[in-house]
This record gives sequence, structure tokens and C-alpha cells, in this order.
Amino acid sequence: DGAVVYGRASAPEIAALIGQTTIAPEGYVLRSVRDNGRRVTVIAGGSDAGVLYGAFDLLRRMQTRQSIDDLNVAEAPVVQLRLLNHWDNLDRTVERGYAGQSIWDWHTLPGFTPQRYTDYARANASIGINGTVLNNVNANALSLTEPYLLKAAALADIFRPYGIKVYLSARFSAPIEIGGLTTADPLDPAVQAWWEAKADEIYRLIPDFGGFLVKANSEGQPGPQDYHRTHAEGANMLADAVAPHGGVVMWRAFVYAHDNPEDRAKQAFDDFVPLDGQFRDNVIVQVKNGAIDFQPREPFHPLFGAMPKTPLMMEFQITKEYLGQATHLAYLGPLFEEVLRADTFQRGPGSTVAKVVDGSLFGHRLTGIAGVANIGTDRNWSGSDFNQANWYVFGRMAWDPEHADAAAIAREWAAMTFTPDPRFVEPAVGMMMRSREAVVDYMTPLGLHHLMATGHHYGPGPWVSDLARPEWNPAYYHQADATGIGFDRTATGSDAVSQYAPEVARVFGDPALTPEADLLWFHHLPWTYRMRSGRSLWDELVLTYGHGVNEVAAMQATWASLEDFVDRERF
Amino acid sequence: DGAVVYGRASAPEIAALIGQTTIAPEGYVLRSVRDNGRRVTVIAGGSDAGVLYGAFDLLRRMQTRQSIDDLNVAEAPVVQLRLLNHWDNLDRTVERGYAGQSIWDWHTLPGFTPQRYTDYARANASIGINGTVLNNVNANALSLTEPYLLKAAALADIFRPYGIKVYLSARFSAPIEIGGLTTADPLDPAVQAWWEAKADEIYRLIPDFGGFLVKANSEGQPGPQDYHRTHAEGANMLADAVAPHGGVVMWRAFVYAHDNPEDRAKQAFDDFVPLDGQFRDNVIVQVKNGAIDFQPREPFHPLFGAMPKTPLMMEFQITKEYLGQATHLAYLGPLFEEVLRADTFQRGPGSTVAKVVDGSLFGHRLTGIAGVANIGTDRNWSGSDFNQANWYVFGRMAWDPEHADAAAIAREWAAMTFTPDPRFVEPAVGMMMRSREAVVDYMTPLGLHHLMATGHHYGPGPWVSDLARPEWNPAYYHQADATGIGFDRTATGSDAVSQYAPEVARVFGDPALTPEADLLWFHHLPWTYRMRSGRSLWDELVLTYGHGVNEVAAMQATWASLEDFVDRERF
Repeated sequence: DGAVVYGRASAPEIAALIGQTTIAPEGYVLRSVRDNGRRVTVIAGGSDAGVLYGAFDLLRRMQTRQSIDDLNVAEAPVVQLRLLNHWDNLDRTVERGYAGQSIWDWHTLPGFTPQRYTDYARANASIGINGTVLNNVNANALSLTEPYLLKAAALADIFRPYGIKVYLSARFSAPIEIGGLTTADPLDPAVQAWWEAKADEIYRLIPDFGGFLVKANSEGQPGPQDYHRTHAEGANMLADAVAPHGGVVMWRAFVYAHDNPEDRAKQAFDDFVPLDGQFRDNVIVQVKNGAIDFQPREPFHPLFGAMPKTPLMMEFQITKEYLGQATHLAYLGPLFEEVLRADTFQRGPGSTVAKVVDGSLFGHRLTGIAGVANIGTDRNWSGSDFNQANWYVFGRMAWDPEHADAAAIAREWAAMTFTPDPRFVEPAVGMMMRSREAVVDYMTPLGLHHLMATGHHYGPGPWVSDLARPEWNPAYYHQADATGIGFDRTATGSDAVSQYAPEVARVFGDPALTPEADLLWFHHLPWTYRMRSGRSLWDELVLTYGHGVNEVAAMQATWASLEDFVDRERF
Repeated sequence: DGAVVYGRASAPEIAALIGQTTIAPEGYVLRSVRDNGRRVTVIAGGSDAGVLYGAFDLLRRMQTRQSIDDLNVAEAPVVQLRLLNHWDNLDRTVERGYAGQSIWDWHTLPGFTPQRYTDYARANASIGINGTVLNNVNANALSLTEPYLLKAAALADIFRPYGIKVYLSARFSAPIEIGGLTTADPLDPAVQAWWEAKADEIYRLIPDFGGFLVKANSEGQPGPQDYHRTHAEGANMLADAVAPHGGVVMWRAFVYAHDNPEDRAKQAFDDFVPLDGQFRDNVIVQVKNGAIDFQPREPFHPLFGAMPKTPLMMEFQITKEYLGQATHLAYLGPLFEEVLRADTFQRGPGSTVAKVVDGSLFGHRLTGIAGVANIGTDRNWSGSDFNQANWYVFGRMAWDPEHADAAAIAREWAAMTFTPDPRFVEPAVGMMMRSREAVVDYMTPLGLHHLMATGHHYGPGPWVSDLARPEWNPAYYHQADATGIGFDRTATGSDAVSQYAPEVARVFGDPALTPEADLLWFHHLPWTYRMRSGRSLWDELVLTYGHGVNEVAAMQATWASLEDFVDRERF
């Protein structure tokens, strides 16, 4: 009694036990059955990865003290590409990394492969992540040279048993920088041939290479517009190079130009919506959750739902660039959930962002969700123990964005990381669930955004107004003056609201209808504006900042009360 | 029986047991005695630090399986300042660091002080290190602002119980950068007053602050020469500021100027010897072991012994900037020993560098030895387990440079780090002891130097000859052409040999007398020059490079044979 039997559903012994032979490729079945009178637990997978995911599910149930006596579980991921994006540079610095150096030690790769690489793969597999982009989107063309491809191949060999594919950020100008060409024009046959040969070379070394991630014509990166070509023409050229090998191109929509006087929040939509329908089948456009840049709170990005003919991939940021970095407590589950559950109304009510991302709204086969990693060489991986929860919740939510529950996942994580004792889990989860709202309150309440000081994006700098590019200045975003505060994005202002579906635009276009949490994102209002509480806007702002600070004090008290449940080192 | 009693010798109970009441401040006595018929081991110290050093000595004897039944040991350090120099920047990068990020997390200091800081202090105390310069000699003036001083003070509080003082690198132009003055001229009363007030502020926060380390007028750093003042005038101004508090100034002699056509190897001597006798009593001049820059092998620096009126401090580099960085095996004990035992002949035979450094040659009270640290956030602290041996041997040699024995210390370290089993220790120490010579052989044999490629100083780049400053080009150092190779530093060349005492100059001035290991450092010789082996210089060079490579193969075989003695993770 009590044996665990595992294998692919295609194996006759397994199929006989569960009575079915087909399971979705990465899916699995957990079933308590009787075999010749003995009680057996079966883990059946649609693939080796599916078996692995099933095994981790079983472990999770055991670690969280759930019964495993009478299992009847069938699970399969709803999203195809569940990826980490590492913004890791070749010199081992990590852009927006707050957990030490890059875990990729390019200097000692490919020869030396410490256990940490395997631990990384196992940790990711345990939460369903199936791919990783190794290098920064602000890419160095060196990553595509043979010595670095051999290093990437060594990592791919380690990750493969864990169901994880390797991807690379591709620098668009690589044909010039490492290829000796004089142009990177995507319509130039020599450039196309160079990328085809490069793709052939990569797939010889990494047969299951996932594909390219590209940041082009954004913040100084090269791209097709340098040659008066569109983003679609650039993406398609790369897509044609990897298509014969089954690769994909993830083309980022995070673009804004310093010489464009238009509201920065509108520029990605303006650039990409006209290209809908022009991308190859193996291109997916990767869109940040909001239209500015990973703020503590942003309304959902208007691109979601606005490009029905193009698969769109979600880009979340797990590393807390704007949310206090490694030293503030901010559990991002509620942020992810809020965005995924937002309703775009693009095909009527219920057209949630999650349904855009999982492909169900417009029937796309290619789907994806990416998280900018918070992983580094720190002993705790993520700069603090609680930051691990953001890596965890990202993976768990990517599996099935529509049904993911931030609180339930926090409960799982807290129980497995510390103790399943409810006297610990309930207060800890309460603290986690309120933590992101506290950050919003003490940093950017009521729809304010991008008030952080220059460069580091850590401390406040609302007074900064002297940077060369207007949209790098906090003053650009809050528009505060003697009479009021807020960014008018209604028809009397930048009219960014018009990029949303009419049902949404009507709400965001009217201060009386706009949720107060987003109020100053869309409206410039007098300091005396009357809030729903009856207080003036000024008073409400002060109160909200104060509320955020009080929450932190409450969290400190909560944590202090949990000392008995946490080992000394982590406490 | 078997009790260990410890305390200061000034305590009557301790004095009664050992029959003496005075021990040198950091010294200790280990004595096996009988007390009321019971056998007792006494650790008596001249200070709390002395007791600690005694305790570590006892532990070392136990770990290396020496008898502790009949102890009669009296030890005291011969050198006063035994310091690590961290070339750690405020952004947690480490100049010439190959073991991760800086262990100083300035962002979370002073509030958060993880166990690693304490571990660091204990490790240093165990090998007699009594001070640490926290920040890079290429200094940032921010280190001297109050927020950063509070962070340094938090570290000082942790280090104090371990007998370790904190020092800071001082940027000479700080009065301008953080003081609001328009000059940093050391003779300007406002500048002097600023440094005095700054010293007062530092000592309020860190009452036992050690003092300043200064890199001035070298490689672009500001310094007194910017105001047409001498190094002595600059050093004395700072010395006067810290003197009332008992602080010292360590003024580096590593200077060379891009507009000076003189042989770089001669410039420090030219600048500093004329200043002998002009420095305050609390200034010590810190001199690198050789006149160029931490090469795999350099003849000893001609400044040693050449400034009888000035205390000179040794600067070794523990981090292996030019010796293969973190990935090559190179035990530096033999390098340190070779330099310390070199005879300057400045007061006749036996005027070793060690006697200059320990103050005995010219009767100096202020003495010191510094090592540029190889410590980072890597789990193994130093980039590899064997690199820890270089930290270890530095500390052990600093205690008594004249009598230190590189092989004995390697044996100690190997026994304590892995196993005292002689079947492991003897082959491992043999490998360690040959490893530095192997690096010399495969990188810079027969006195060649600075052939490493630009910037990273890792791989070879003897062809580099296009850098803006002539003395940054490898071609400057090897002078290879169709007829021969080597840098002529005799009277027919730069005459650097004349900076040594006549007995030494005679040896280095004649290729027939010069040790072949230093041959091309001092002589430009034809490729056909006949070596003592009978081979031509060219053949000897090729053979020596090949010998270095063969040594590496032999080390790999040796290590492979030791698998049984090493745990799996480290093997």
C-alpha cells in the first residue's frame, strides 16, 4: 500500500491505471487507485514535463498538509510560454536586480556548472515555468557569438530535464556588430541570410532553443525603424530565421520616443495597433501590464484586446524596480491578479486581460506570459525571503492566469516556506496581501505615478524636472501646480482614454466614474476636489500617504508577533 | 583536569598561573600548568585581542592535530598594522574583485547587519588581522558623509570585539565635493579646518577609527600636486587632522604620470625619496611589493630601504588581478615570502624587505602590512576554496614577516580546510607551492611583465600597443623586436637599477649575474642570447611557457588523485 507510480500516460501500465491514454503535453493527472487490491497513487503526465509537474503538485499537497488519500486531479497549463526574463548583463550586473550578481557566471561557463544552475531549474519547474531568457533585453551582440552560444548550450543541457527551454535576447544590430555587415536592415537579403545562418548555428548547439526576445527602437536600442521599416518587418525577418526550427520571436511593445510629443502612455498603442495582422504566426508581441513602466499601480495596458489578429504576451516585473526593490515588503500577487482580471470590454463584458493572454478571447494558439526575474547570487536568491514569494506567485499564476488566486497562492507559499501552522499562515498572508497596497499608498497614491527619483527608481523625487527627456521627469507625470494635480488623459488632455474600448473609456474619462485608485492617472483635478469620502483631494492624499506608513508599522508588529514560528536565521 | 583558563595577564588569577604580569598588547602566552594538582591550559593575553589570538592559536594546534599537552608558547605580532584593503565601491562592485559583489551592503547598512559581517571579523581575527579599509583607494567622497559614516560605524561596532579597527580611503578632493569649498589645497587653512572637523565627526561616531588610506595623484586621482604641493604636504595635512585622535595616514607610493617619459618603474622612487624625513610621525608610506603593479613576479620595490627616516608599509595584492583571477590556482605564499626575504643591502647584507616592513632595520615604531582583499559575496568568500589560502597566508605572514614560512602555512591551511591526513596534505601543498611559479611560467616567464590584455588583466595581449598612455601598453614592457626582447633598465637603458643599493645594482645591472627569473625585467637581450642551460633565449622562453602548461596538467592529475579526501561539493 502507498506506492507512487508515475509515467507518461502513453505508457500502457500507466494508461491502464488511470483509464486514459492522452493528456495535454504538459498536463498531468493525479489519481488514487487500487491496483491488485493495493492502494496506489498515480502521477500520469502528457510528457516528461507533465509527470514532473504532477510530482511537484503532489509534493505541494503534502507540504501544505492536504490529504492525498483520495486524489482525482487533472491539470494542464493554459498558457504555452511561461517564461522568466533575466535582465542580466554579460559582466554579471543585473539591470534592476537587487539580489546580488547574475547567477550566470559567463566567465566559467561552459566548463564549470555549479549546483546552483540545477537548483534554479528545479525551482522553476516546481512552479511550472518552462523557459528562460538568459540575457538582458538591452542586449549585447556578444551573446550571439559562438563562445557565448556554447555557454548558453551548457545551461540548456542542465535545464532540459526540467522542461525548461533557453531563449536569448537578440540585439537587432548584431549583423553589424558581430557579423561584419554594414547594415541591419531587415529587408536586406544579406541581413536575412546572416540571421538564418545564425539561427542554424544556434539550433545545432541547442536543438530545442526557444527563440528570440527583442527590444527594438526603445530607449536607444537599435531596431527596424533605423531603416524606416516597421516593427512587423523587423520581427518577421527574425521569425523567418527561427521558423524552420520551431522557434518564436517575442517582440516587445515597450516603445516610446524622446522626439514624440505625444503622451508616453499612448505611444506603444499608436505604434503597434496599425500593425495588427502583419506579424508572422510565430511572432508574439510582449506587452507590459501597464502603458508606462511597472508602477506600483497602473491601469491595464490599452493594447490588451486592441490587436485581435496578433497574439499578445504579458510582461510582468517580478523584481521590484519601483516597489521598494529588495528591502520593502510587497507581495505582487494582488498586482498581477488585478491586471489579469481587468476587463478590456473589447469583445463585450468579460473580455478580461487574462483571456487575451491565454488566447481564448481571439482564439490564438501561441500564448505567453513573462516575468522579469528577481533572481541573483544572494543566498536567499531574491534579496529577501519574502521576495521569493513574487517568483513563486508569478509561476503559479502563469499556469492559469484567469483562475489564479493571489491569496490562495500566498497561503501555499507561506506554508511551504515557513510552516503550515495557521497561527503563522493567516497573519503572514494578511500582511502579504496588504503590502502592495501599502506601497501604492506611501509612494504613488490615487493614480499618481513615476514620482521616484532618477536612475535608481527607489526613493521619491517628485521635484525632478530637469532631465533631458521630458518623459523621464516625475514632474511630467504629476503635473502638479498651484491649482491642482494629475495627468489629464481625457479628451481635454492627451485623450489616452480613447485607446480603451468605449465602455472603459467612458469610465476612465469621467472623474466621477474613475476608480479613485486610478484618479490622478487620468485626471488633473483641483486640490480642493471633493473625494467620495467627503475630504478634499489634498486631505485625501495626505491621509493615504499616512495610511501607507501606518500599514508598515502594522506589518512590523505582525512580523514581531510571529517570532515563535520562524527559525532564528530567517526571523 | 583539562580545563582551559583564559584572560588578560593583568588579571591576578592569570598572572599567578603563568608567573608573569606583562605581555605585549596583542601578544599571548599558551602554557600547560598545574593548578592545585589539576592540569590546566592557560591562554593569557596582553589585551582582549591577545587572548583571542591565543585562543585561535590553540584551536589551530588542535585542528592540525598537534599535541596540546605540554604547551609553552609566547607569541606577539611583530608588525603593528595588519590590514586588509578592500577595493570595494559604494555600488557593490569590487575593483579587481573576482568573488562576487562587495560584502558591504551599503544600502541596508546601518540598520541591517547580517551574520556575514561577524563571520568576516572572526575569520580575520583567527589569522591576526587587526584592521580593514572598507572602501576602494579610488575613493568616492560620499564615504565621508554622515550617512556613510554611520554605516561604517555599524561595521566598526561589529568588528571591535574581534580586535579589528575600521579605516577609510579618503578622496583628497572631498572638501570640494562634499564640503562646498573651492579648493582642496593642503596648505589652505579652510581645507585644513574642514579635515579637522571631519576627523572630529568620524571619531565621535567611531572612537577607535584607524585612520585614512590615500591614493593621490595617481591614475587620475586628485592630490596635493594639483596645487603644486608635495605628497608630504598632502599627507601631513591629513595626519594633523587625525593625530589628536591617535589616527594614522597611510599614503600610497603607487604613483606614475602619463606625461612623465621616465620608465614607470622609476617614478615612485623619484617622487618619494626626496621627501624622506618630511612626513609626520603618524604617516606611513604604503609601497607595493614591486615597482610596476602586482605582476606574477617582480623584483622587490627599490623604495624598500631607500627612505630610512620614513616608515614604509608593504602593500600585497591578495586578489589575483594578474595571476589568473579567481579561476587559476596560484598560492601566493611563495610570492610574499620571496619579496619579504629579498635583501635590499641598504644597511649591509641581511637588510631584508621584511626588516624594513617590521621596522627593525631603521628602528621605526609605526609598522604595517596591507593586503588587497579577495573577499566577496561568493559562498566560498574568495571565488574558489583555494583562494582562501591567499587570505590566510597573508594574515599569518603579516604577523611576523621575517620568519613566516609559506610551505608551513600552506600545510596548516590545507589541514584545517580539508583534512590533516598527510596523504592529502603533502600532495596538496606540493601543488600549491608550485602553482605560482607555474603562473609565472605560462604568463610572464624570465622577467617579462605586464603582457596581459587591456582592462581585465586576464588573458594575454602582448601585441597591444595602441593605448593612449605608453605605460598601459604591453609592448612598452617587453620591447620585443626583430633582434631581441626585454626592458633595458641598466645604465644603457632607463638605469632603474641605480635606484637599488650598489650591491644589488651590480647584480641586476649585469645579465650574467641577474637571476634568470628576473632577466628580461632588467635587460634587453638578443633572441640568440645563451642561457645558463646552454639554450638560446628563444628556446628557453618556449620551454618555460611549456613548462608552465605542463605544471597545470600535473596539478589536475594531483587533484584528481585526492578525490577520496575531499567532500563531494568542494571536489
